[in-house]
Amino acid sequence: MTQHLTHIPPELASLADYEQFAEQFIDPAAWAYIQGGSGDERALQNNCNAFAKYQCLPSLLRPCGEGTTEVRLIDTVLRHPIVLAPVAYQKLVHDLAEIETARAADATDSLMVSSTLASVPMEEVITHNKGTNWFQLYFQPDRDITQDLVARAEASGFSALMVTLDAPVQTFSRRLMRKGCGLPADITAANLINYAQPEPVEIGRYESRVFQGVMRKAPTFADLEWLINYSKLPVIVKGVLNPNDAERLLGCGVSGIVVSNHGGRAFAAAPAAIDCLAAVRERVGDACVLVDSGVRSGYDVFKALALGADAVMIGRPQVHALAIAGALGVAHMLQLLRDELEVAMAMAGCATIDEIKRVPVWKGDDYVNRN
Amino acid sequence: MTQHLTHIPPELASLADYEQFAEQFIDPAAWAYIQGGSGDERALQNNCNAFAKYQCLPSLLRPCGEGTTEVRLIDTVLRHPIVLAPVAYQKLVHDLAEIETARAADATDSLMVSSTLASVPMEEVITHNKGTNWFQLYFQPDRDITQDLVARAEASGFSALMVTLDAPVQTFSRRLMRKGCGLPADITAANLINYAQPEPVEIGRYESRVFQGVMRKAPTFADLEWLINYSKLPVIVKGVLNPNDAERLLGCGVSGIVVSNHGGRAFAAAPAAIDCLAAVRERVGDACVLVDSGVRSGYDVFKALALGADAVMIGRPQVHALAIAGALGVAHMLQLLRDELEVAMAMAGCATIDEIKRVPVWKGDDYVNRN
Amino acid sequence: MTQHLTHIPPELASLADYEQFAEQFIDPAAWAYIQGGSGDERALQNNCNAFAKYQCLPSLLRPCGEGTTEVRLIDTVLRHPIVLAPVAYQKLVHDLAEIETARAADATDSLMVSSTLASVPMEEVITHNKGTNWFQLYFQPDRDITQDLVARAEASGFSALMVTLDAPVQTFSRRLMRKGCGLPADITAANLINYAQPEPVEIGRYESRVFQGVMRKAPTFADLEWLINYSKLPVIVKGVLNPNDAERLLGCGVSGIVVSNHGGRAFAAAPAAIDCLAAVRERVGDACVLVDSGVRSGYDVFKALALGADAVMIGRPQVHALAIAGALGVAHMLQLLRDELEVAMAMAGCATIDEIKRVPVWKGDDYVNRN
Amino acid sequence: MTQHLTHIPPELASLADYEQFAEQFIDPAAWAYIQGGSGDERALQNNCNAFAKYQCLPSLLRPCGEGTTEVRLIDTVLRHPIVLAPVAYQKLVHDLAEIETARAADATDSLMVSSTLASVPMEEVITHNKGTNWFQLYFQPDRDITQDLVARAEASGFSALMVTLDAPVQTFSRRLMRKGCGLPADITAANLINYAQPEPVEIGRYESRVFQGVMRKAPTFADLEWLINYSKLPVIVKGVLNPNDAERLLGCGVSGIVVSNHGGRAFAAAPAAIDCLAAVRERVGDACVLVDSGVRSGYDVFKALALGADAVMIGRPQVHALAIAGALGVAHMLQLLRDELEVAMAMAGCATIDEIKRVPVWKGDDYVNRN
Repeated sequence: MTQHLTHIPPELASLADYEQFAEQFIDPAAWAYIQGGSGDERALQNNCNAFAKYQCLPSLLRPCGEGTTEVRLIDTVLRHPIVLAPVAYQKLVHDLAEIETARAADATDSLMVSSTLASVPMEEVITHNKGTNWFQLYFQPDRDITQDLVARAEASGFSALMVTLDAPVQTFSRRLMRKGCGLPADITAANLINYAQPEPVEIGRYESRVFQGVMRKAPTFADLEWLINYSKLPVIVKGVLNPNDAERLLGCGVSGIVVSNHGGRAFAAAPAAIDCLAAVRERVGDACVLVDSGVRSGYDVFKALALGADAVMIGRPQVHALAIAGALGVAHMLQLLRDELEVAMAMAGCATIDEIKRVPVWKGDDYVNRN
Repeated sequence: MTQHLTHIPPELASLADYEQFAEQFIDPAAWAYIQGGSGDERALQNNCNAFAKYQCLPSLLRPCGEGTTEVRLIDTVLRHPIVLAPVAYQKLVHDLAEIETARAADATDSLMVSSTLASVPMEEVITHNKGTNWFQLYFQPDRDITQDLVARAEASGFSALMVTLDAPVQTFSRRLMRKGCGLPADITAANLINYAQPEPVEIGRYESRVFQGVMRKAPTFADLEWLINYSKLPVIVKGVLNPNDAERLLGCGVSGIVVSNHGGRAFAAAPAAIDCLAAVRERVGDACVLVDSGVRSGYDVFKALALGADAVMIGRPQVHALAIAGALGVAHMLQLLRDELEVAMAMAGCATIDEIKRVPVWKGDDYVNRN
Repeated sequence: MTQHLTHIPPELASLADYEQFAEQFIDPAAWAYIQGGSGDERALQNNCNAFAKYQCLPSLLRPCGEGTTEVRLIDTVLRHPIVLAPVAYQKLVHDLAEIETARAADATDSLMVSSTLASVPMEEVITHNKGTNWFQLYFQPDRDITQDLVARAEASGFSALMVTLDAPVQTFSRRLMRKGCGLPADITAANLINYAQPEPVEIGRYESRVFQGVMRKAPTFADLEWLINYSKLPVIVKGVLNPNDAERLLGCGVSGIVVSNHGGRAFAAAPAAIDCLAAVRERVGDACVLVDSGVRSGYDVFKALALGADAVMIGRPQVHALAIAGALGVAHMLQLLRDELEVAMAMAGCATIDEIKRVPVWKGDDYVNRN
Repeated sequence: MTQHLTHIPPELASLADYEQFAEQFIDPAAWAYIQGGSGDERALQNNCNAFAKYQCLPSLLRPCGEGTTEVRLIDTVLRHPIVLAPVAYQKLVHDLAEIETARAADATDSLMVSSTLASVPMEEVITHNKGTNWFQLYFQPDRDITQDLVARAEASGFSALMVTLDAPVQTFSRRLMRKGCGLPADITAANLINYAQPEPVEIGRYESRVFQGVMRKAPTFADLEWLINYSKLPVIVKGVLNPNDAERLLGCGVSGIVVSNHGGRAFAAAPAAIDCLAAVRERVGDACVLVDSGVRSGYDVFKALALGADAVMIGRPQVHALAIAGALGVAHMLQLLRDELEVAMAMAGCATIDEIKRVPVWKGDDYVNRN
């Protein structure tokens, strides 16, 4: 594979360029793992097509000289609303893995969400980003382990927990199955390495590996309520598409939600996340709402904010950028997004993130909102 | 042609993979026969495009540990709702033909529907599947023959009759016409081989081979009513798209219907079957409704159930799998579908088939139902 | 160029096959002339895409043994509703030109409409089709000539006049302009060859060749009313898209209209003709309505009838078939259409053309009518 | 690069042909500059797809012998409504640059709008077009300079000012960034060459180059009001998409607006301009409205007028034509548009530009207006 770059060539002018360049820097099985979606990949495909359906109506001559991308998420003021999504196993593409990603977050004042499945322990990752860090939590089959993860996150200085609930079953994508499945042996979830493996579940003759296997241990509302009570940190739920879920979760006391279809890696029959955003926002009033799954430019960020998001998360592009040029790549990729967002705001006459929420949005040829 | 495989390579991770691999295992004229649709193939094309238009909204944190794919069809409880559709002339792709398919049904607890036009006699096929078997009936021009087919099906242990009514005319597809038409001489309808051939119909100078030829012998409501009275077995009608037809048929005493455009092999101007499903379900209340034509993944199965089907039938993919690896292939193909269905149910928070019917479905960007 | 065929190979199983095969039988400039549309060819493109948007809902078990494709147009009963559209300059693709086309009409009981711009005189063409013949009329700048054309048509035995009104300006398509424009010198409008050429129009410095040139001589309502009064024959107007026009024309005394965008060869910003049909039919009650522009299969014929047409006209495909195999080709092409129409009717449970008009039609996912 | 042509070959039969031919006459970096759009180029893509969605319903037999394309814009009667949009830096493709373009305007009685960023001084450009000339104004950071530009435009004989307000930030397209950015050193804005460069802005540690850099100097409503008062000339605002902006601008005293997304070069999340036109027209009554962005044929011109524009502007195609054949190319390109417009009018039965505004328009399958 090609060596990581130490400078950014002019050909890398967009996240699409990063994606196209990345393949030569990444092992084919890892590439299948990163790029694939679940099942027939229609949720993945929906994400790719979704943003192009939306257009926004700009306004002229508005004063933007005091403009800013600052945004408040829960209790934190961020310099900009572009968040590094939790992405597992970054060692697949770079030896320093999440350490480099954290350095990029630090250099660009970006909120980083560290994954339970990071290939570097959370205690190490967080030292490399002086800014805001959140910890992404997967409930573990054994509550003691979950509890320990939370305690470690609190002790290390993470300021919120983002619990992912849309992937109670984890499967290999068809792309990865065709490659023979499986990650390389040296790729591990560093945060979990010292815990005992869960007992293998015994499945009866007519029982299902999915239902009587995995789902017997899947998280429940009781687990979520326990978490909210147990942890001092605010809890954000990742993976919400259904407005009913959004409402119920906020009623349980979560501090925010992420509208997401897990980058097309969870429920393959799901809509694009962005297509669910406006209905969720309408249901939850002023609650903290993030969105991910398919954001690939600062214009996509703008559209997501116009449709009601407070911030967006960026997943696969951080892996592409990490593979190409480590921290430098990730920082440049984030800077491209932020620059494009600022240009979009100026062009549309929006001096603040709040003003974006008043921009009229079309989908196809109808208004989603008139604002 | 390539020899049948005796193991499943990792490249066969989906029904799309099976379709792509199958061509090298099948004679080109047979391939044209299998893959072709009627007329301009727009009904076939509609099927291909239809499922991608639908999306389903999942729900989080629902308990699925007791989950099951069990479903009751008429009087039978099935372990899962994925049915082997009646497919004619399977000897085109495998010497053991429907025997291998029946073995796959047996191994995967799948309901199999045997075709009138099978290349192995029904009495032989049924011995290879200890589970539930239905017999697909084409009305014969001579009622005595039809009556004999029914009697044989009852005597052999089939537990229902599925009568196909959407193809009163059988034509060659354009693909097959371009290959010079016709099936190989050794491919016969084994169930019919001992009956006298019908008298050739004489057509007048200005008469039509279609109307005054074939359609003079086509089945009528009187034939259907005769069948319902004559047979002890429940009668399911295959090939319904029009809600008015569905209502009238149930009024006649049929026990169920299959929403189907015959895999695009009958009326070429027809909509996709899945596009007709919700309107049919709305009209027929709790009646037994199956759907086929275009189901190519467990996610498609999930969507079909969410739109109101009790079960789905799988046609061409069983031929692809049979050609590649006989019973092993068909069983693996069915297992892929069932695994994907279970994963989809777990992801969407559905512990039972009935719960799927309460999932909100979008088409394009509008709700088909809100459930 | 390839010699005309004397038998029909199995590869010619549809009108699409005819189109694909035809190119090798036709001179490139003639091919550009035949295939091209006006302007940006979007009207042509609209025609190509339009039929696929429509689907029809079949009905089961309807008696069709007495089925027939007979249809009454104005005062004539035709064996089937598939009409040979007027197509100019058929000598471009076959030395015998319209004579062969007339022979094909004769062999297939098809109504043929002979063009003013035929390369064989109308008096000769009509002798080759014992069935019904109509004459397509372009108003000539000089009324005496128009009058003479009408008198000749009446004298020769044509039973109706189809006057084309949607192309007051005739331009070369961009495809033909790129080939250097112009038809070969030996290709002439045989019906017009003995008339004096119109005086060239003088155009002032700031006048327009279109408005002050061509359009000063373009037909008016007065011309149409003159024609209706002057001729004993019924007058059908070709080229109607606007329901207001349809209503006004019928008020003037025309006997029928053809919903047509001239195969995409006239107003380039026009919708597909089939997309205009239902609205026109709704406005004109039981008046005689034909449609052309994009009919390429018997299923398209079925859709056109379901949307309200009494008959359809076939343009470019007759040229493709003529080029490939003369009268034999045209007859086979017409037979393919008729066979497909009969199969479609049988499949959909329609025993008569009138019953097709009661078939529910979808466009996209909405009903155009519920019938 | 290829030499400019001195005659027009038959292959140049449309603006699409010009675009395709142009690439071989233009340096690759200049080509990237000309063809590129801002950001993810979705606004550019929207323009390309937009016109094909619209269709117009023609009317038959209307008298057009006195037809004319004359149109009144503000106080000037133009022979036709096809305007040369302001396009910067035309020296990129031709040494004589805007001089040749002006000659083409002169030869074709076309209104030309000269750009602030022209590569030839306005005083020189205007001498080559005896017809109507407008001056396109970018507000300069220093008002004295803006004032001088206006004074020069008035003194030179320009009869209106078109002030562009949709691009307060000017960025390089990704295409140009990938080429290493930047225009050749000999390409300059000749109108600005004698003015002092603006002071470079100092940006604080956490300030934004966009907001605290460029936007502090961006024009405001106060600037626009100053301009309207200061100049004797009517002021037209270019770059309006939002009907609210249109209404407010007319309230300020502007004399007309241009519905435009700057050819996809400004706000990348914007709709196609043509998709905004009907709503703007509905809001502004009889005010002067032009449209640009994606007009590529006389049929597009027709559609734009039917949707409510008084005139259209042509941008990139003038550069393509200039590159290929200088003034001759631009004149021929304009003549193609005008010829196509006249043909379209004649075909649709419109003798005047005003009559086009009463033509019913479809978008997809719905009426935009019924007129």
